[in-house]
Amino acid sequence: MVNKDKATIDLIYEPIQPHLVQVEDRLRALAPKGHPALLDLLRHVTVSSGKRMRPAITLLASRFHPNDGELAITMAAAVELLHLASLVHDDTVDNSPVRRGLATVSNLWGRDVAVQLGDYLFATSAVFVCDTNNVRVIRRFSETIKDLATGELIEGFGTFQWDHTYEQYKERIYSKTASLFRTAAESGAILSGATEETIQALSRYGYSLGMAFQIVDDILDFDGTQEEVGKPVGHDLLQGVLTLPSMLLLQRYPDNNPVIGLFRGEDTEGNRQKALDMIHNSTIIEESHAVARDFRDDATSALGGLPDIEARRSLHALASYVLERRR
Amino acid sequence: MVNKDKATIDLIYEPIQPHLVQVEDRLRALAPKGHPALLDLLRHVTVSSGKRMRPAITLLASRFHPNDGELAITMAAAVELLHLASLVHDDTVDNSPVRRGLATVSNLWGRDVAVQLGDYLFATSAVFVCDTNNVRVIRRFSETIKDLATGELIEGFGTFQWDHTYEQYKERIYSKTASLFRTAAESGAILSGATEETIQALSRYGYSLGMAFQIVDDILDFDGTQEEVGKPVGHDLLQGVLTLPSMLLLQRYPDNNPVIGLFRGEDTEGNRQKALDMIHNSTIIEESHAVARDFRDDATSALGGLPDIEARRSLHALASYVLERRR
Repeated sequence: MVNKDKATIDLIYEPIQPHLVQVEDRLRALAPKGHPALLDLLRHVTVSSGKRMRPAITLLASRFHPNDGELAITMAAAVELLHLASLVHDDTVDNSPVRRGLATVSNLWGRDVAVQLGDYLFATSAVFVCDTNNVRVIRRFSETIKDLATGELIEGFGTFQWDHTYEQYKERIYSKTASLFRTAAESGAILSGATEETIQALSRYGYSLGMAFQIVDDILDFDGTQEEVGKPVGHDLLQGVLTLPSMLLLQRYPDNNPVIGLFRGEDTEGNRQKALDMIHNSTIIEESHAVARDFRDDATSALGGLPDIEARRSLHALASYVLERRR
Repeated sequence: MVNKDKATIDLIYEPIQPHLVQVEDRLRALAPKGHPALLDLLRHVTVSSGKRMRPAITLLASRFHPNDGELAITMAAAVELLHLASLVHDDTVDNSPVRRGLATVSNLWGRDVAVQLGDYLFATSAVFVCDTNNVRVIRRFSETIKDLATGELIEGFGTFQWDHTYEQYKERIYSKTASLFRTAAESGAILSGATEETIQALSRYGYSLGMAFQIVDDILDFDGTQEEVGKPVGHDLLQGVLTLPSMLLLQRYPDNNPVIGLFRGEDTEGNRQKALDMIHNSTIIEESHAVARDFRDDATSALGGLPDIEARRSLHALASYVLERRR
């Protein structure tokens, strides 16, 4: 994280800082005794420079009803662990050598260990969530694991195809991203003992924030620099993955579109550059941002009926941060 | 399955046959709508020639207290699905081209799809188990997923090392096999509403049966034919995995042992053959069988206090089958 980002995030997380430290402690206490090799692996995965955005949402969403915070801390650790598990498998499938400046597990220990470690992390997150003793939350969590897996499978099957609808795109980014954001918020509210109305409001906040987050991610893939994003610009296109900006480009120029050429395997480098130029010389980035902004607006309006406490102001600020972030 | 095996198994499963059919129906109804590629994958994985031993144990263990069978059917489907998920990832990590005469997912669709499909199956099994609405069972199930992942990780880290203790071996085969057998039996009992005493008896049955099952598996790796086992004889040794027979060989001949040579990468084929010959020219296979038999005896004695109903006779017969099976 760059310093300005870190200052913004620190301010947003201020009301939950002591509890976030406890989430970190839970993540670090994971390794089973007597297996030093596993200890090294877990340390590598959990001591990351991630933003801990999902557990922060769980903790913030638990503040709208009085409670001692214990269940929310447990849940926040489970949510982050699930996120880390999915990153390990995604990096394995994508053959990514680096994530946030650190070598990936599959790069350092090989793909087999990465598959097994991901399984271990998925399973551990499922055990964590059982400590909440709340079947509703456990079910939501399991459905989210399924959504994550479905999202990755569907994305994999749909690569190098250019006939995706906007509805299919929304379904895909819900599965791979927004489902977990929704669960992070919803479960924090449920475990705090909040009313059903509050639960539904925070669930909607999480959903819409997650949708905005993924659309911004997809925009940064075209609009960011390699240094900001940590991947080559237009990486999704090279992987055959259609996202909002490339879908808008296809809509605008249905004939002789460079995306179609690229997906057909013709002049990959030339077509990638042509697609990037066409996107940058159009209003597509602005239009994509407008779609993300609509989701962000829905997230903040979902907070409308909640009491004006510190946690609400943080969730509000987090929604703005998600939209403006450059990495 | 050969015909004699099939006849034995059919007889054992007779009291639960209609419910096993419902388990099959649940497995076949898995595929989400609108994703034909995923449908093909799921069909390939679920229409297998497996023995369905784990779901059968759940169904049989649910017969010691009156109940309508619904929860046990749900649980049995979850248990089998978890087993299938672990096979998909194991075959991926082991690069196995064939399983029970069928090409593996990683062989047909590639390793990336196999990783994602395994994740999908793990997650779906976790959603299934939530339908039982029983936190105790859900927790046991999550711990079993963790055990499976731990077992594979530990086995991976310990390959080509020859200083394993018998205690470590037991811990490993508990994680990779007996934990799921235990959960299959224990959860059937819990969900039927049986007394704690009955639950504990069936839990112990499942544990000991699973231990016996894995030891017999490890014996067959040395004692079976390639045709029976579906893998080359001595496959575990070639993978650097120490099991009971090779541990006994190391104990008997601590110096100049061919296993050590093989694990050091010296004359792999010669050392494999030498190890096989030494095992066959000794009482090691019989001794290993005696250890498996002790676990089998413990499994059947755990059934001692239960009423003499059809299901108990089936569980008894299943324990004998596990010990005598050749594949």
